Amino acid sequence: MKNIEHIGIAVKSLEVSIPLFEKILNTSCYKTEVVESEKVNTAFFQIWESKVELLESLDPEGVVARFIEKKGEGIHHIAFEVKNIEDEMKRLQQEGFVLLNEKPKKGADNKLVCFLHPKGTNGVLIEICQDVNI
Amino acid sequence: MKNIEHIGIAVKSLEVSIPLFEKILNTSCYKTEVVESEKVNTAFFQIWESKVELLESLDPEGVVARFIEKKGEGIHHIAFEVKNIEDEMKRLQQEGFVLLNEKPKKGADNKLVCFLHPKGTNGVLIEICQDVNI
Repeated sequence: MKNIEHIGIAVKSLEVSIPLFEKILNTSCYKTEVVESEKVNTAFFQIWESKVELLESLDPEGVVARFIEKKGEGIHHIAFEVKNIEDEMKRLQQEGFVLLNEKPKKGADNKLVCFLHPKGTNGVLIEICQDVNI
Repeated sequence: MKNIEHIGIAVKSLEVSIPLFEKILNTSCYKTEVVESEKVNTAFFQIWESKVELLESLDPEGVVARFIEKKGEGIHHIAFEVKNIEDEMKRLQQEGFVLLNEKPKKGADNKLVCFLHPKGTNGVLIEICQDVNI
């Protein structure tokens, strides 16, 4: 794992939470982006070489809406940047971890992403991601 | 906020979770440390300029034990490194955030730390920390 690429935080409303996190982090949201595959609208804040990513569900049945219903607003996942996502997916499978997608899929912010099943990772939803441009 | 200093993950047993996270992160735990003030035993993994910190409660009534009882094992807090913790505490109070400790307190890994009340931060427990040696 190269670095913590971002922390994903589930929120009910970007309209409310963007100004809130601008105050907490003392920096401006630099972009918002709809991710159709996950049915979420996202907002990003840069903190040195990592990001904070707010996630608002676009679908009451989507994964982020269901997470909030079950656990309330809060930290949803950690994403680690990797050099080669396919190599890392193979390594993790060989270690016995269950991947939530068998092939890398398109995530926010121009990344290929893969999630690990949280049942095998102490309840932590872990994303690995690779920049598409590299 | 300078950078994500660490992500804190609540676990039931370091004995189980240290080898698990060594596999996930593909790096060795570089130290464990008891933090008396929080009644936890901690284990650290370095990921570039950030850390993953596992937290095991030493007290069945402690904050980490109560967190696991309520929500299960999983991500407990995010810590952001700051240059001057007292200045940052003042700034956050002026913005209307509630601090869980009025003065910086000694945390793990030679840091002065302060937590924000998660009711004001979308359910996210946020720590700010400053290296004692700086």
